[in-house]
Amino acid sequence: MGDFESVGKAFVGHYYKTFDTPGGRGQLAALYQETSMLTWEGQKMQGAQNIVQKLTSLPFQSCTHHVSTMDCQPSGQTGGIIVSVTGQLLVEGEQHPLKFSQVFQLMPSTPGNYFVLNDIFRLNYA
Amino acid sequence: MGDFESVGKAFVGHYYKTFDTPGGRGQLAALYQETSMLTWEGQKMQGAQNIVQKLTSLPFQSCTHHVSTMDCQPSGQTGGIIVSVTGQLLVEGEQHPLKFSQVFQLMPSTPGNYFVLNDIFRLNYA
Repeated sequence: MGDFESVGKAFVGHYYKTFDTPGGRGQLAALYQETSMLTWEGQKMQGAQNIVQKLTSLPFQSCTHHVSTMDCQPSGQTGGIIVSVTGQLLVEGEQHPLKFSQVFQLMPSTPGNYFVLNDIFRLNYA
Repeated sequence: MGDFESVGKAFVGHYYKTFDTPGGRGQLAALYQETSMLTWEGQKMQGAQNIVQKLTSLPFQSCTHHVSTMDCQPSGQTGGIIVSVTGQLLVEGEQHPLKFSQVFQLMPSTPGNYFVLNDIFRLNYA
């Protein structure tokens, strides 16, 4: 297993665990920088503050992500890692989970650490 | 609409049109280079030749992709573009389409042209 896969797997575990912890979404700010972009269901935001404002204002208090598949690839010569996730999202109070797809591009920040440069999230209604 | 979105949209239209044309998958070789990576349902390949060998040996002769969502983001300072697609894939002879997720990272090659550096494909059974 390549190192990029270890990084991707650890990131995905941390990200959704934090996301799904009540009150935890605000802590995701530490994973983004000013150049970071989020496209959430087609809506675009840039910068850690705008991104976390979106995530913390979603119309549900708690949810549970179940990861079905996770694939990682090194992203060229930049040291980046592309992580593609599919899974199910169960929102508090709902009976049925929704399928989602999410893509992250992780980039090296300080040695041994990464930040989220690209983040695209979609629910799969179709 | 940013230029990266025009590029992404044109790429996606061309890619699936070529893929879905009987005998067309072999022509996708022109979109990949030796550094290109494909993860197809968890199976990894590198290089245009290996990638196209996989695509042309899939166990169906023809299929139809229907794109439900397409999101693009610029990929940092490299000139790259990340394209995330969700949609449905109907394989010849099957009654029901399968949902899929596919991610591409496009990188500049010759001026005005791009190649596929990263390609991750998943069917969403879950």
